[in-house]
Amino acid sequence: MSATAYRLYSYFRSTTSYRVRIGLNLKGVSFETVPIHLLNNGGEQYSATYGAVNPMAELPTLEVVDGAGQVTARLSQSVAILEYLEETHPAPPLLPSSPLDRARVRQRVEVINASIHPVQNLKVMRKLTADFGTDRPRNFQWAAYWIARGFQGLEVLLADTAGVYSVGDDVTLADVALIPQVFNAHKFGVDMGPFPTIQRVTAACNTLSAFQAAAPDRQPDAA
Amino acid sequence: MSATAYRLYSYFRSTTSYRVRIGLNLKGVSFETVPIHLLNNGGEQYSATYGAVNPMAELPTLEVVDGAGQVTARLSQSVAILEYLEETHPAPPLLPSSPLDRARVRQRVEVINASIHPVQNLKVMRKLTADFGTDRPRNFQWAAYWIARGFQGLEVLLADTAGVYSVGDDVTLADVALIPQVFNAHKFGVDMGPFPTIQRVTAACNTLSAFQAAAPDRQPDAA
Repeated sequence: MSATAYRLYSYFRSTTSYRVRIGLNLKGVSFETVPIHLLNNGGEQYSATYGAVNPMAELPTLEVVDGAGQVTARLSQSVAILEYLEETHPAPPLLPSSPLDRARVRQRVEVINASIHPVQNLKVMRKLTADFGTDRPRNFQWAAYWIARGFQGLEVLLADTAGVYSVGDDVTLADVALIPQVFNAHKFGVDMGPFPTIQRVTAACNTLSAFQAAAPDRQPDAA
Repeated sequence: MSATAYRLYSYFRSTTSYRVRIGLNLKGVSFETVPIHLLNNGGEQYSATYGAVNPMAELPTLEVVDGAGQVTARLSQSVAILEYLEETHPAPPLLPSSPLDRARVRQRVEVINASIHPVQNLKVMRKLTADFGTDRPRNFQWAAYWIARGFQGLEVLLADTAGVYSVGDDVTLADVALIPQVFNAHKFGVDMGPFPTIQRVTAACNTLSAFQAAAPDRQPDAA
């Protein structure tokens, strides 16, 4: 059997890329990073070359490459990639075994993936600047508003299920989604005081090497 | 064994609620609708009563109720709910069998769930009005921009995988996510001309009773 290789199109500060880096590290899957700079040259994700890789012009994209160097799969959307890794590399599991607990994990993932992150995304802030003339501090204020608002609900949800980690005492996809969002919370100046459970779980995750090695400042493209 | 009942907190025009209604119908799961009006009384989702059901103050929420009337599960986030239904009611399957095909379906679901829908959500438009004084036509323009932009990428992805439906010739979760987003595209005045594959798949889905019965104008709270 030929060796399968993984290639991750990533930007060091992209939190959706950060999620997939954590997932790959937790699964013990080594990968090559292909940096796509979201700011340089008007955004490298908008190049024709990358458009052929990902028609949504978004990060991350994971390519699965067979032993002959052929790309056998090209996947985007961090949650779809993480679910694919869970199915193809079941150990260690990042979803619990019971359907209800799995749903609780996925609910917490999606609170971040669908309710919090998209509204504070770079392309939304660029659109605010284009349409309403917002400057950088105003964009940061916009991002901080949505993160703080989302964390108010997420804190209640985590207080209900957290043990050492977001749902119980094992690392799950909920933690994989949480830690990059907390990175953005700090970046945009969110006061984390009202979110003690989020803070406690974050501290626990950040003691693990899989999370540490996925951090933005540890990436080959870190500025 | 006592009968399990399902209660869906829903708003007829909420496209995330619409997704779950389609999923329940496809699985043959009957459910009671609890209408939560997103506009009346400043938004019923912000009531203390509903906040106890869903700390994110978002729709939908699915409650699973046992034979004694006890709520045994309370789940939100439409994708988490749909994955839960897939695991607890495997027939008919709404995800293919191979990990790669499952990932392709989930990627298309998340393009809608994480990249398109959240940015054109009601609460974002309300924030634009509060912060920048946008009126209703301007908010519709904002929503149409993001949907059209997202559909440009989604059209390429669907052209790559569609048979009768979004991925192959069986209905999947990608269709469950697509049809409500197309409903919003029409609502906000998006020109669907450039999206022939999306249009064709939408027409195929809308011949099915599970999709028809989930449509906003067929709901008990339809205005």
